[in-house]
Amino acid sequence: MKIYVVGIGPGRYDEMTGRAEKALLESDVIIGYKVYIQLIRDRFSHKEMIESPMRGEEARCDMAVEEALKGRTVSVVCGGDPGVYGMAGLVCGKAGKYEGLQVEVVPGITAACSGAAVLGAPLIHDFAVISLSDLLTPWETIEKRLKAAAETDMVICLYNPASRRRRDHLKRACEIVMKYRSPGAVCGLAVNVGRDGEEGRVMTLGQLAETEADMFTTVFIGNSRTRNIGEKMVTPRGYSDEDIVI
Amino acid sequence: MKIYVVGIGPGRYDEMTGRAEKALLESDVIIGYKVYIQLIRDRFSHKEMIESPMRGEEARCDMAVEEALKGRTVSVVCGGDPGVYGMAGLVCGKAGKYEGLQVEVVPGITAACSGAAVLGAPLIHDFAVISLSDLLTPWETIEKRLKAAAETDMVICLYNPASRRRRDHLKRACEIVMKYRSPGAVCGLAVNVGRDGEEGRVMTLGQLAETEADMFTTVFIGNSRTRNIGEKMVTPRGYSDEDIVI
Repeated sequence: MKIYVVGIGPGRYDEMTGRAEKALLESDVIIGYKVYIQLIRDRFSHKEMIESPMRGEEARCDMAVEEALKGRTVSVVCGGDPGVYGMAGLVCGKAGKYEGLQVEVVPGITAACSGAAVLGAPLIHDFAVISLSDLLTPWETIEKRLKAAAETDMVICLYNPASRRRRDHLKRACEIVMKYRSPGAVCGLAVNVGRDGEEGRVMTLGQLAETEADMFTTVFIGNSRTRNIGEKMVTPRGYSDEDIVI
Repeated sequence: MKIYVVGIGPGRYDEMTGRAEKALLESDVIIGYKVYIQLIRDRFSHKEMIESPMRGEEARCDMAVEEALKGRTVSVVCGGDPGVYGMAGLVCGKAGKYEGLQVEVVPGITAACSGAAVLGAPLIHDFAVISLSDLLTPWETIEKRLKAAAETDMVICLYNPASRRRRDHLKRACEIVMKYRSPGAVCGLAVNVGRDGEEGRVMTLGQLAETEADMFTTVFIGNSRTRNIGEKMVTPRGYSDEDIVI
């Protein structure tokens, strides 16, 4: 009785780890949101797969537990890393009620890392990862975190920067950050990472505030020392003047 | 003329991505801190490899640029992800001065994600990644960031929690967080991830303050809703009461 919660990374098959591949090969059934199932369908076509709709996280998790309790080995697949806004928490929580039901989380490359790689090196140093989705978190809490991170000069990585329902969240986030950081601060968008149309766009914080993002975008707001070096977004390792490179 | 900056993940060969493997296979020379070179030496033994000492980041980077300018394809290997306290920034900065010298950052699983997987699901929601090393960052800046993250109930992931030179940094960090979070707050240590002796230890914030960490440890401090579920550290997806699982 085992459930793997498997991170498949940004999307391209070769950005999955060997360990993730092994977990999927070892499984009797693979369950996931349909977009992620489609990404791995060809490679694991001999496996039983169950597609689950978006926002069906609870049902997906119940299904995984049910299948595992039958004695089957189950993989729940997640885009990126299952531990960053992913299914790892729900599965650990639900499976914890059943003795003998093992859960193994298999990490994957999360969007903060895959997006950073496309832009160059925007993180490098201390950073905060904040989701702009207010579905499960009050917007005031999100605002406080943006302020706290901006005030203390952390690089900020934004997940879920926009959706149809909340088009103005990115603009509002930028306005908060701009109280503490210059409108010229170096920012970047990582768009369609691991998909067709993959692209990094380096811009200023002022420009970012006027940019529309979608759900396939991860946003990076640099700290006071982040630079645009030949259209790469590069943050130095600290605050030492010896860090002459940047 | 190309430099790959390659993340090899926590250490086990199968936690590297296919893309990282391809980059290494394509390279004429592989350069890295000796601990990382040793991790991959067997698999890529037919390659020219250059070991570089710890803290030799600048020299390692200069060497990579020099080799690439000869027309060779170079990989600089990093543990975890090269974009999180890794070599990606230095390489992008130095290589940016030479026209035609391409840099490609190949992401890997960073300790926040590999450590989280060992503990269960400590991150899941908004989090701050903060290094307790004050080599390049003033300790006051680190303290401000700890306070900002604690005050706004972000999960906190600590890199470099201790070294011989600064044994009390973790204790001091916990004391700051304890001003805003209960001593009973759920915390965890991920020790030797990807190495022999891999282990996750779930404990309270009060206990964490009395714990000695080493440089092979990543520390996780939960938010107000993080729970210990059967010795797994699990953070819910948000603040909704519908999130009944946890």
